[in-house]
Amino acid sequence: MVELITLYTAKICPYAQRAEIALEESGLPYKRYEIDLSNKPEWYAPKVNPASKVPAIAYGGPDVAPETPSPESAKIAESLVLLEFIADLSASTKPLLPADPVARAKARFFIEAVLSKFTGAFYGALTRGEDPAPVLDTIDILQGLLPEEGYVVGEWSIADAAVTPFLARALISFKHDIGAYDEGAGKKLYDVLQTDAKYARFRKYYADVSSRPSFKDTWHEDVVIDVFSKRFNELRIQRLAQK
Amino acid sequence: MVELITLYTAKICPYAQRAEIALEESGLPYKRYEIDLSNKPEWYAPKVNPASKVPAIAYGGPDVAPETPSPESAKIAESLVLLEFIADLSASTKPLLPADPVARAKARFFIEAVLSKFTGAFYGALTRGEDPAPVLDTIDILQGLLPEEGYVVGEWSIADAAVTPFLARALISFKHDIGAYDEGAGKKLYDVLQTDAKYARFRKYYADVSSRPSFKDTWHEDVVIDVFSKRFNELRIQRLAQK
Repeated sequence: MVELITLYTAKICPYAQRAEIALEESGLPYKRYEIDLSNKPEWYAPKVNPASKVPAIAYGGPDVAPETPSPESAKIAESLVLLEFIADLSASTKPLLPADPVARAKARFFIEAVLSKFTGAFYGALTRGEDPAPVLDTIDILQGLLPEEGYVVGEWSIADAAVTPFLARALISFKHDIGAYDEGAGKKLYDVLQTDAKYARFRKYYADVSSRPSFKDTWHEDVVIDVFSKRFNELRIQRLAQK
Repeated sequence: MVELITLYTAKICPYAQRAEIALEESGLPYKRYEIDLSNKPEWYAPKVNPASKVPAIAYGGPDVAPETPSPESAKIAESLVLLEFIADLSASTKPLLPADPVARAKARFFIEAVLSKFTGAFYGALTRGEDPAPVLDTIDILQGLLPEEGYVVGEWSIADAAVTPFLARALISFKHDIGAYDEGAGKKLYDVLQTDAKYARFRKYYADVSSRPSFKDTWHEDVVIDVFSKRFNELRIQRLAQK
Protein backbone atom coordinates (compact mmCIF):
# COMPACT_ATOMS: atom_id res chain seq x y z
CA MET A 1 0.00 0.00 0.00
CA VAL A 2 1.28 3.45 -0.84
CA GLU A 3 1.66 5.66 2.22
CA LEU A 4 1.39 9.42 2.72
CA ILE A 5 3.55 11.55 0.41
CA THR A 6 4.61 15.11 1.12
CA LEU A 7 6.61 16.81 -1.61
CA TYR A 8 8.85 19.74 -0.71
CA THR A 9 9.30 21.70 -3.90
CA ALA A 10 9.76 25.16 -5.44
CA LYS A 11 8.13 26.60 -8.56
CA ILE A 12 11.40 27.92 -9.94
CA CYS A 13 13.37 24.68 -9.67
CA PRO A 14 13.57 22.29 -12.64
CA TYR A 15 14.77 19.41 -10.44
CA ALA A 16 11.72 19.84 -8.23
CA GLN A 17 9.39 20.04 -11.23
CA ARG A 18 10.65 16.62 -12.33
CA ALA A 19 9.22 15.10 -9.15
CA GLU A 20 5.98 17.10 -9.44
CA ILE A 21 5.41 15.95 -13.00
CA ALA A 22 6.02 12.31 -12.06
CA LEU A 23 3.66 12.56 -9.09
CA GLU A 24 0.97 14.13 -11.28
CA GLU A 25 1.37 11.36 -13.85
CA SER A 26 1.32 8.68 -11.14
CA GLY A 27 -2.11 9.69 -9.92
CA LEU A 28 -0.88 9.15 -6.33
CA PRO A 29 -2.25 11.66 -3.81
CA TYR A 30 0.37 13.96 -2.29
CA LYS A 31 0.73 17.17 -0.37
CA ARG A 32 2.67 19.91 -2.11
CA TYR A 33 4.69 22.28 0.06
CA GLU A 34 6.47 25.28 -1.49
CA ILE A 35 9.91 26.03 -0.06
CA ASP A 36 11.05 29.63 -0.48
CA LEU A 37 14.59 28.98 -1.71
CA SER A 38 15.68 32.52 -0.90
CA ASN A 39 14.45 32.18 2.67
CA LYS A 40 14.31 28.53 3.64
CA PRO A 41 12.44 27.59 6.79
CA GLU A 42 14.72 26.74 9.70
CA TRP A 43 13.28 23.26 10.11
CA TYR A 44 13.86 22.22 6.51
CA ALA A 45 17.52 21.11 6.61
CA PRO A 46 17.47 19.42 10.02
CA LYS A 47 14.10 17.71 9.57
CA VAL A 48 13.78 17.01 5.85
CA ASN A 49 16.90 17.36 3.72
CA PRO A 50 20.35 17.99 5.27
CA ALA A 51 21.51 19.25 1.85
CA SER A 52 18.75 21.89 2.15
CA LYS A 53 17.72 21.46 -1.49
CA VAL A 54 14.44 20.69 -3.22
CA PRO A 55 12.91 18.38 -4.19
CA ALA A 56 12.53 16.07 -1.20
CA ILE A 57 9.77 13.72 -0.16
CA ALA A 58 8.62 12.73 3.30
CA TYR A 59 7.07 9.30 2.92
CA GLY A 60 4.92 7.42 5.42
CA GLY A 61 4.47 8.09 9.10
CA PRO A 62 1.55 9.96 10.68
CA ASP A 63 -0.55 12.56 8.84
CA VAL A 64 1.17 15.74 9.99
CA ALA A 65 1.45 19.27 8.65
CA PRO A 66 4.34 19.64 6.16
CA GLU A 67 5.88 22.28 8.44
CA THR A 68 6.24 19.75 11.26
CA PRO A 69 7.61 16.64 9.54
CA SER A 70 7.53 13.50 11.63
CA PRO A 71 10.71 11.56 12.44
CA GLU A 72 8.69 8.48 11.54
CA SER A 73 8.51 9.32 7.83
CA ALA A 74 11.31 8.37 5.45
CA LYS A 75 13.01 11.42 3.93
CA ILE A 76 14.15 11.02 0.34
CA ALA A 77 16.06 13.53 -1.77
CA GLU A 78 17.68 13.95 -5.19
CA SER A 79 15.42 14.37 -8.21
CA LEU A 80 16.50 11.25 -10.09
CA VAL A 81 16.20 9.11 -6.97
CA LEU A 82 12.70 10.52 -6.55
CA LEU A 83 11.72 9.76 -10.15
CA GLU A 84 12.65 6.10 -9.64
CA PHE A 85 10.94 6.11 -6.24
CA ILE A 86 7.69 7.47 -7.66
CA ALA A 87 7.87 4.94 -10.51
CA ASP A 88 8.40 2.15 -7.95
CA LEU A 89 5.42 3.34 -5.89
CA SER A 90 3.09 3.48 -8.86
CA ALA A 91 4.43 0.42 -10.72
CA SER A 92 1.31 -1.65 -10.18
CA THR A 93 -1.27 1.11 -10.65
CA LYS A 94 0.21 3.45 -13.28
CA PRO A 95 3.57 2.33 -14.70
CA LEU A 96 5.95 5.25 -15.28
CA LEU A 97 8.64 3.00 -16.72
CA PRO A 98 8.08 0.19 -19.23
CA ALA A 99 8.36 -3.42 -18.06
CA ASP A 100 10.97 -4.45 -20.63
CA PRO A 101 14.53 -4.19 -19.20
CA VAL A 102 15.96 -2.89 -22.51
CA ALA A 103 13.33 -0.14 -22.72
CA ARG A 104 13.98 0.75 -19.07
CA ALA A 105 17.68 1.01 -19.87
CA LYS A 106 16.88 3.32 -22.78
CA ALA A 107 14.85 5.56 -20.49
CA ARG A 108 17.73 5.71 -18.00
CA PHE A 109 20.33 6.31 -20.70
CA PHE A 110 18.27 9.28 -21.90
CA ILE A 111 18.08 10.64 -18.35
CA GLU A 112 21.86 10.30 -18.10
CA ALA A 113 22.24 12.21 -21.38
CA VAL A 114 20.05 15.05 -20.12
CA LEU A 115 22.34 15.34 -17.12
CA SER A 116 25.69 14.93 -18.86
CA LYS A 117 24.95 16.88 -22.04
CA PHE A 118 22.06 19.29 -21.90
CA THR A 119 21.83 20.78 -18.41
CA GLY A 120 25.51 21.75 -18.23
CA ALA A 121 25.43 23.52 -21.59
CA PHE A 122 22.21 25.36 -20.80
CA TYR A 123 23.16 26.44 -17.28
CA GLY A 124 26.61 27.49 -18.48
CA ALA A 125 24.89 29.91 -20.84
CA LEU A 126 22.11 30.99 -18.49
CA THR A 127 24.13 31.47 -15.33
CA ARG A 128 27.74 32.01 -16.43
CA GLY A 129 27.27 33.77 -19.73
CA GLU A 130 28.83 31.05 -21.87
CA ASP A 131 27.95 30.96 -25.55
CA PRO A 132 24.52 29.28 -25.75
CA ALA A 133 25.11 27.94 -29.29
CA PRO A 134 26.33 24.52 -28.01
CA VAL A 135 22.90 24.04 -26.44
CA LEU A 136 21.65 23.39 -29.98
CA ASP A 137 24.12 20.52 -30.33
CA THR A 138 22.93 18.97 -27.09
CA ILE A 139 19.30 19.30 -28.19
CA ASP A 140 20.32 17.52 -31.37
CA ILE A 141 21.87 14.71 -29.29
CA LEU A 142 18.69 14.32 -27.23
CA GLN A 143 16.49 14.46 -30.32
CA GLY A 144 18.69 11.74 -31.85
CA LEU A 145 17.81 9.47 -28.92
CA LEU A 146 14.07 9.85 -29.50
CA PRO A 147 12.02 7.35 -31.47
CA GLU A 148 10.36 8.61 -34.66
CA GLU A 149 7.28 9.55 -32.71
CA GLY A 150 5.97 9.51 -29.18
CA TYR A 151 7.89 9.82 -25.97
CA VAL A 152 11.44 8.73 -25.05
CA VAL A 153 10.51 5.07 -24.83
CA GLY A 154 7.18 5.20 -26.68
CA GLU A 155 4.76 5.58 -23.80
CA TRP A 156 5.33 8.51 -21.44
CA SER A 157 7.91 7.67 -18.74
CA ILE A 158 10.07 9.27 -16.06
CA ALA A 159 12.62 9.96 -18.82
CA ASP A 160 10.18 12.58 -20.13
CA ALA A 161 9.73 13.96 -16.62
CA ALA A 162 13.51 14.30 -16.35
CA VAL A 163 13.98 16.43 -19.45
CA THR A 164 10.83 18.54 -19.77
CA PRO A 165 11.48 21.07 -16.95
CA PHE A 166 14.90 21.86 -18.41
CA LEU A 167 13.64 22.21 -21.97
CA ALA A 168 10.89 24.54 -20.75
CA ARG A 169 13.36 26.75 -18.93
CA ALA A 170 15.76 26.82 -21.88
CA LEU A 171 13.00 27.79 -24.30
CA ILE A 172 11.65 30.54 -22.05
CA SER A 173 15.15 31.88 -21.50
CA PHE A 174 15.91 31.97 -25.21
CA LYS A 175 12.49 33.27 -26.26
CA HIS A 176 12.77 36.28 -23.95
CA ASP A 177 16.55 36.53 -24.22
CA ILE A 178 16.91 36.22 -20.45
CA GLY A 179 20.28 35.00 -19.25
CA ALA A 180 23.88 35.94 -18.54
CA TYR A 181 24.78 35.18 -22.16
CA ASP A 182 25.27 37.96 -24.72
CA GLU A 183 22.17 39.99 -25.55
CA GLY A 184 20.42 38.68 -28.63
CA ALA A 185 22.04 35.23 -28.50
CA GLY A 186 18.98 33.67 -26.90
CA LYS A 187 16.48 35.04 -29.42
CA LYS A 188 18.69 33.85 -32.27
CA LEU A 189 18.69 30.31 -30.89
CA TYR A 190 14.97 30.43 -30.26
CA ASP A 191 14.33 31.31 -33.91
CA VAL A 192 16.50 28.41 -35.08
CA LEU A 193 14.72 25.99 -32.76
CA GLN A 194 11.31 27.21 -33.95
CA THR A 195 11.96 27.26 -37.68
CA ASP A 196 14.92 25.10 -38.74
CA ALA A 197 13.79 21.79 -40.27
CA LYS A 198 16.64 20.11 -38.39
CA TYR A 199 14.75 20.56 -35.13
CA ALA A 200 11.34 19.38 -36.33
CA ARG A 201 11.51 16.24 -34.19
CA PHE A 202 12.45 18.29 -31.16
CA ARG A 203 9.53 20.68 -31.74
CA LYS A 204 7.05 17.83 -32.03
CA TYR A 205 8.47 16.20 -28.91
CA TYR A 206 8.30 19.40 -26.89
CA ALA A 207 4.73 20.01 -28.06
CA ASP A 208 3.85 16.50 -26.87
CA VAL A 209 5.40 16.73 -23.40
CA SER A 210 4.40 20.32 -22.74
CA SER A 211 0.74 19.79 -23.62
CA ARG A 212 0.26 17.19 -20.88
CA PRO A 213 -1.62 18.36 -17.78
CA SER A 214 1.28 17.04 -15.65
CA PHE A 215 3.48 19.73 -17.19
CA LYS A 216 0.95 22.53 -17.49
CA ASP A 217 -0.19 22.18 -13.89
CA THR A 218 3.38 22.31 -12.56
CA TRP A 219 4.84 25.00 -14.84
CA HIS A 220 4.88 28.57 -13.53
CA GLU A 221 6.06 30.63 -16.46
CA ASP A 222 5.58 33.97 -14.74
CA VAL A 223 7.73 32.87 -11.79
CA VAL A 224 10.50 31.54 -14.03
CA ILE A 225 10.58 34.71 -16.16
CA ASP A 226 10.59 36.91 -13.09
CA VAL A 227 13.33 35.05 -11.19
CA PHE A 228 15.52 34.44 -14.25
CA SER A 229 15.25 38.10 -15.29
CA LYS A 230 16.23 39.42 -11.88
CA ARG A 231 19.03 36.95 -11.35
CA PHE A 232 20.64 36.45 -14.72
CA ASN A 233 20.12 39.69 -16.61
CA GLU A 234 21.91 41.32 -13.71
CA LEU A 235 24.79 38.87 -14.24
CA ARG A 236 24.86 39.80 -17.92
CA ILE A 237 25.28 43.44 -17.01
CA GLN A 238 28.04 42.66 -14.53
CA ARG A 239 29.77 40.46 -17.08
CA LEU A 240 29.69 43.21 -19.71
CA ALA A 241 30.95 45.76 -17.19
CA GLN A 242 33.99 43.56 -16.55
CA LYS A 243 34.89 43.32 -20.24
CA MET B 1 13.67 -15.10 -20.43
CA VAL B 2 17.06 -13.52 -20.14
CA GLU B 3 18.88 -13.37 -23.47
CA LEU B 4 22.58 -13.48 -24.39
CA ILE B 5 24.77 -10.95 -22.60
CA THR B 6 28.16 -9.79 -23.86
CA LEU B 7 29.99 -7.38 -21.58
CA TYR B 8 32.64 -5.09 -23.07
CA THR B 9 34.92 -4.16 -20.23
CA ALA B 10 38.49 -3.32 -19.16
CA LYS B 11 40.38 -4.49 -16.07
CA ILE B 12 41.61 -1.01 -15.23
CA CYS B 13 38.22 0.74 -15.34
CA PRO B 14 36.17 1.16 -12.14
CA TYR B 15 33.00 1.91 -14.09
CA ALA B 16 33.39 -1.35 -15.98
CA GLN B 17 34.09 -3.28 -12.80
CA ARG B 18 30.74 -2.10 -11.44
CA ALA B 19 28.97 -3.98 -14.23
CA GLU B 20 31.21 -7.04 -13.82
CA ILE B 21 30.52 -7.25 -10.10
CA ALA B 22 26.76 -6.98 -10.66
CA LEU B 23 26.84 -9.65 -13.36
CA GLU B 24 28.84 -11.97 -11.10
CA GLU B 25 26.36 -11.44 -8.27
CA SER B 26 23.40 -11.95 -10.61
CA GLY B 27 24.51 -15.44 -11.56
CA LEU B 28 23.48 -14.68 -15.15
CA PRO B 29 25.77 -16.18 -17.79
CA TYR B 30 27.70 -13.64 -19.87
CA LYS B 31 30.65 -13.35 -22.19
CA ARG B 32 33.41 -11.04 -21.04
CA TYR B 33 35.37 -9.16 -23.68
CA GLU B 34 38.39 -7.05 -22.71
CA ILE B 35 38.73 -3.76 -24.60
CA ASP B 36 42.26 -2.38 -24.74
CA LEU B 37 41.50 1.23 -23.85
CA SER B 38 44.83 2.43 -25.19
CA ASN B 39 44.19 0.76 -28.53
CA LYS B 40 40.48 0.30 -29.03
CA PRO B 41 39.33 -2.00 -31.82
CA GLU B 42 38.00 -0.15 -34.85
CA TRP B 43 34.61 -1.80 -34.67
CA TYR B 44 33.95 -0.86 -31.06
CA ALA B 45 32.58 2.68 -31.43
CA PRO B 46 30.51 2.14 -34.59
CA LYS B 47 29.12 -1.25 -33.57
CA VAL B 48 28.86 -1.15 -29.77
CA ASN B 49 29.22 2.21 -28.06
CA PRO B 50 29.43 5.48 -30.05
CA ALA B 51 30.98 7.12 -26.96
CA SER B 52 33.76 4.51 -27.27
CA LYS B 53 33.80 3.87 -23.52
CA VAL B 54 33.48 0.80 -21.34
CA PRO B 55 31.39 -0.74 -19.93
CA ALA B 56 28.81 -1.60 -22.57
CA ILE B 57 26.55 -4.60 -23.00
CA ALA B 58 25.26 -6.22 -26.17
CA TYR B 59 22.01 -7.90 -25.21
CA GLY B 60 20.04 -10.43 -27.18
CA GLY B 61 20.31 -11.29 -30.86
CA PRO B 62 22.19 -14.26 -32.32
CA ASP B 63 25.12 -15.97 -30.58
CA VAL B 64 28.02 -14.23 -32.30
CA ALA B 65 31.66 -13.60 -31.43
CA PRO B 66 32.08 -10.40 -29.34
CA GLU B 67 34.34 -9.00 -32.08
CA THR B 68 31.49 -9.12 -34.59
CA PRO B 69 28.50 -7.73 -32.68
CA SER B 70 25.16 -8.25 -34.35
CA PRO B 71 22.93 -5.30 -35.29
CA GLU B 72 20.12 -7.39 -33.78
CA SER B 73 21.38 -7.06 -30.20
CA ALA B 74 20.51 -4.04 -28.06
CA LYS B 75 23.59 -2.00 -27.11
CA ILE B 76 23.50 -0.47 -23.65
CA ALA B 77 26.11 1.81 -22.10
CA GLU B 78 26.80 3.86 -18.94
CA SER B 79 27.70 2.01 -15.76
CA LEU B 80 24.74 3.13 -13.65
CA VAL B 81 22.30 2.33 -16.44
CA LEU B 82 23.89 -1.12 -16.63
CA LEU B 83 23.62 -1.70 -12.88
CA GLU B 84 19.87 -1.05 -13.05
CA PHE B 85 19.62 -3.15 -16.21
CA ILE B 86 21.35 -6.12 -14.60
CA ALA B 87 19.16 -5.74 -11.51
CA ASP B 88 16.07 -5.69 -13.75
CA LEU B 89 17.22 -8.82 -15.61
CA SER B 90 17.86 -10.76 -12.43
CA ALA B 91 14.95 -9.38 -10.38
CA SER B 92 13.05 -12.66 -10.32
CA THR B 93 16.04 -14.99 -9.88
CA LYS B 94 18.54 -13.10 -7.74
CA PRO B 95 17.36 -9.66 -6.57
CA LEU B 96 20.14 -7.07 -6.63
CA LEU B 97 17.88 -4.35 -5.24
CA PRO B 98 15.42 -4.77 -2.37
CA ALA B 99 11.68 -4.84 -3.13
CA ASP B 100 10.75 -2.01 -0.76
CA PRO B 101 10.61 1.36 -2.60
CA VAL B 102 12.17 3.26 0.34
CA ALA B 103 15.10 0.83 0.53
CA ARG B 104 15.53 1.08 -3.25
CA ALA B 105 15.61 4.87 -2.91
CA LYS B 106 18.29 4.56 -0.22
CA ALA B 107 20.41 2.41 -2.53
CA ARG B 108 20.06 4.96 -5.33
CA PHE B 109 20.77 7.89 -3.02
CA PHE B 110 23.99 6.17 -1.96
CA ILE B 111 24.96 5.65 -5.61
CA GLU B 112 24.33 9.34 -6.24
CA ALA B 113 26.56 10.23 -3.27
CA VAL B 114 29.39 8.07 -4.61
CA LEU B 115 29.19 10.00 -7.86
CA SER B 116 28.73 13.50 -6.48
CA LYS B 117 31.07 13.26 -3.48
CA PHE B 118 33.65 10.52 -3.59
CA THR B 119 34.75 9.96 -7.19
CA GLY B 120 35.44 13.63 -7.90
CA ALA B 121 37.56 14.06 -4.78
CA PHE B 122 39.54 10.89 -5.42
CA TYR B 123 40.14 11.48 -9.13
CA GLY B 124 41.08 15.09 -8.45
CA ALA B 125 43.86 13.80 -6.24
CA LEU B 126 44.86 10.84 -8.37
CA THR B 127 44.85 12.48 -11.78
CA ARG B 128 45.25 16.22 -11.15
CA GLY B 129 47.38 16.24 -8.04
CA GLU B 130 44.84 17.90 -5.79
CA ASP B 131 45.22 17.46 -2.04
CA PRO B 132 43.82 13.99 -1.26
CA ALA B 133 42.84 14.92 2.32
CA PRO B 134 39.21 15.79 1.34
CA VAL B 135 38.81 12.17 0.23
CA LEU B 136 38.65 11.31 3.93
CA ASP B 137 35.67 13.63 4.35
CA THR B 138 33.87 11.99 1.47
CA ILE B 139 34.57 8.53 2.92
CA ASP B 140 33.08 9.82 6.16
CA ILE B 141 29.96 10.95 4.27
CA LEU B 142 29.57 7.53 2.64
CA GLN B 143 30.22 5.74 5.94
CA GLY B 144 27.52 7.93 7.51
CA LEU B 145 25.01 6.59 4.99
CA LEU B 146 25.73 2.96 5.93
CA PRO B 147 23.62 1.04 8.41
CA GLU B 148 25.35 -0.17 11.59
CA GLU B 149 26.28 -3.40 9.91
CA GLY B 150 25.94 -5.14 6.59
CA TYR B 151 25.74 -3.59 3.15
CA VAL B 152 24.30 -0.26 1.98
CA VAL B 153 20.70 -1.42 2.29
CA GLY B 154 21.27 -4.49 4.47
CA GLU B 155 21.50 -7.20 1.87
CA TRP B 156 24.11 -6.75 -0.87
CA SER B 157 22.78 -4.55 -3.72
CA ILE B 158 23.92 -2.66 -6.79
CA ALA B 159 24.73 0.25 -4.44
CA ASP B 160 27.64 -1.87 -3.20
CA ALA B 161 28.65 -2.65 -6.77
CA ALA B 162 28.68 1.09 -7.51
CA VAL B 163 31.12 2.04 -4.77
CA THR B 164 33.46 -0.92 -4.35
CA PRO B 165 35.61 -0.46 -7.50
CA PHE B 166 36.31 3.15 -6.54
CA LEU B 167 37.15 2.34 -2.92
CA ALA B 168 39.51 -0.40 -4.10
CA ARG B 169 41.33 1.97 -6.44
CA ALA B 170 41.55 4.70 -3.82
CA LEU B 171 42.99 2.30 -1.23
CA ILE B 172 45.55 0.85 -3.63
CA SER B 173 46.57 4.33 -4.74
CA PHE B 174 47.03 5.54 -1.16
CA LYS B 175 48.68 2.35 0.09
CA HIS B 176 51.37 2.52 -2.58
CA ASP B 177 51.39 6.31 -2.76
CA ILE B 178 50.63 6.19 -6.48
CA GLY B 179 49.07 9.34 -7.90
CA ALA B 180 49.66 12.86 -9.11
CA TYR B 181 49.25 14.15 -5.54
CA ASP B 182 52.25 15.08 -3.41
CA GLU B 183 54.57 12.23 -2.50
CA GLY B 184 53.75 10.80 0.92
CA ALA B 185 50.20 12.20 1.02
CA GLY B 186 48.70 8.88 -0.04
CA LYS B 187 50.51 6.78 2.56
CA LYS B 188 49.50 9.24 5.27
CA LEU B 189 45.84 8.88 4.33
CA TYR B 190 46.14 5.14 4.12
CA ASP B 191 47.46 4.98 7.69
CA VAL B 192 44.58 7.10 8.94
CA LEU B 193 42.05 4.92 7.14
CA GLN B 194 43.62 1.76 8.54
CA THR B 195 44.06 2.84 12.15
CA ASP B 196 41.81 5.77 13.13
CA ALA B 197 38.79 4.65 15.15
CA LYS B 198 36.72 7.15 13.19
CA TYR B 199 36.93 4.92 10.12
CA ALA B 200 36.13 1.61 11.84
CA ARG B 201 32.75 1.35 10.10
CA PHE B 202 34.39 2.03 6.74
CA ARG B 203 37.03 -0.66 7.35
CA LYS B 204 34.42 -3.24 8.24
CA TYR B 205 32.34 -2.31 5.22
CA TYR B 206 35.29 -2.52 2.86
CA ALA B 207 36.29 -5.89 4.34
CA ASP B 208 32.73 -7.11 3.69
CA VAL B 209 32.47 -5.97 0.07
CA SER B 210 36.02 -6.84 -0.91
CA SER B 211 35.85 -10.39 0.44
CA ARG B 212 33.01 -11.34 -1.90
CA PRO B 213 33.94 -13.50 -4.89
CA SER B 214 32.19 -10.96 -7.16
CA PHE B 215 34.87 -8.45 -6.21
CA LYS B 216 37.85 -10.76 -5.96
CA ASP B 217 37.20 -12.33 -9.35
CA THR B 218 36.92 -8.95 -11.09
CA TRP B 219 39.74 -7.07 -9.32
CA HIS B 220 43.10 -6.99 -11.04
CA GLU B 221 45.40 -5.35 -8.54
CA ASP B 222 48.55 -5.85 -10.59
CA VAL B 223 46.98 -4.12 -13.60
CA VAL B 224 45.72 -1.20 -11.54
CA ILE B 225 49.08 -0.68 -9.82
CA ASP B 226 50.92 -0.91 -13.12
CA VAL B 227 48.69 1.47 -15.09
CA PHE B 228 48.25 3.97 -12.24
CA SER B 229 52.03 4.04 -11.63
CA LYS B 230 52.87 4.68 -15.26
CA ARG B 231 50.18 7.25 -15.79
CA PHE B 232 49.93 9.24 -12.58
CA ASN B 233 53.39 9.12 -11.03
CA GLU B 234 54.57 10.64 -14.30
CA LEU B 235 52.01 13.42 -13.80
CA ARG B 236 53.33 13.98 -10.28
CA ILE B 237 56.83 14.48 -11.65
CA GLN B 238 55.58 16.88 -14.32
CA ARG B 239 53.58 18.79 -11.75
CA LEU B 240 56.60 19.16 -9.46
CA ALA B 241 58.75 20.24 -12.39
CA GLN B 242 56.31 23.07 -13.09
CA LYS B 243 56.43 24.39 -9.54
